[in-house]
Amino acid sequence: MTIENLQDLFVHTLQDIYYAEKHIVKALPKMAKAADSAKLRKAFEKHFGETEEQIERLDAAFKSIGQTPKAAKCPAIDGILKEASELLAEIKDADTRDAAMIAAAQAVEHYEITRYGTLVSWAEQLGHKEAGKLLAKTLEEEKHTDAALTDLAESKLNKQAA
Amino acid sequence: MTIENLQDLFVHTLQDIYYAEKHIVKALPKMAKAADSAKLRKAFEKHFGETEEQIERLDAAFKSIGQTPKAAKCPAIDGILKEASELLAEIKDADTRDAAMIAAAQAVEHYEITRYGTLVSWAEQLGHKEAGKLLAKTLEEEKHTDAALTDLAESKLNKQAA
Repeated sequence: MTIENLQDLFVHTLQDIYYAEKHIVKALPKMAKAADSAKLRKAFEKHFGETEEQIERLDAAFKSIGQTPKAAKCPAIDGILKEASELLAEIKDADTRDAAMIAAAQAVEHYEITRYGTLVSWAEQLGHKEAGKLLAKTLEEEKHTDAALTDLAESKLNKQAA
Repeated sequence: MTIENLQDLFVHTLQDIYYAEKHIVKALPKMAKAADSAKLRKAFEKHFGETEEQIERLDAAFKSIGQTPKAAKCPAIDGILKEASELLAEIKDADTRDAAMIAAAQAVEHYEITRYGTLVSWAEQLGHKEAGKLLAKTLEEEKHTDAALTDLAESKLNKQAA
């Protein structure tokens, strides 16, 4: 990794979120399977489909700037997913585990929101219009998913666990 | 760690963010020292002071629910901070490093925003009014810090690096 300017940093950060998305898409079916609430399971299944599309959008963003799609190890998402799986393994009560799963999924969403937010801003500064458009679309999806998880968390789901 | 209900999960998550804040408060003076832009340095210095207050607020939140303040290892913040320090070590150009530092700090802020958001919601569901008030105050500070970092990122800082 040699990062000499904002363009290099942009490419590196694309590779970072590419790695993250590839790991998230593997984690989501496990989350859906582990969810007790039907609404939560559906939310994870829906986001699984979105994440597959987000990976395709990243492929297109790489290509739009003449780069081959590539993943760069991302210790941040590794840590976020490790924390989630360690925590969920400790919880037997179904409602409490659903509450913890929503919180874990929101930590993932916020990681994606911050990275895509940064990438959209850098794409604009670097004049990468096509990549910026693709990344902005995913950013909006991630914000929407986070808001949907908040709605679920504030519904009766957690009140059952209290 | 035994988590049987939402109350246990609330306490565990307080311990998780307590660990995170204790590590963030150690990282911030290094970030301030490494910043090239005077505005960015000041932003890190300001947030260092806020983080010290946020730790005091967590102490008070623990006490308000009859718990002794305690940190629980948080692989998520470990991963986020590890990724930041590995990346920054690779960047020699001052403007590019400042851009990367803003992005790294925003990843930290978003981790805090998601955890405090969850804690505020659970505090309400559990009837922990005093803790909820303290956590909501920190949540607003973190959102404000994230917005200030976005303003810095979108100012001429990054345009110099492009």
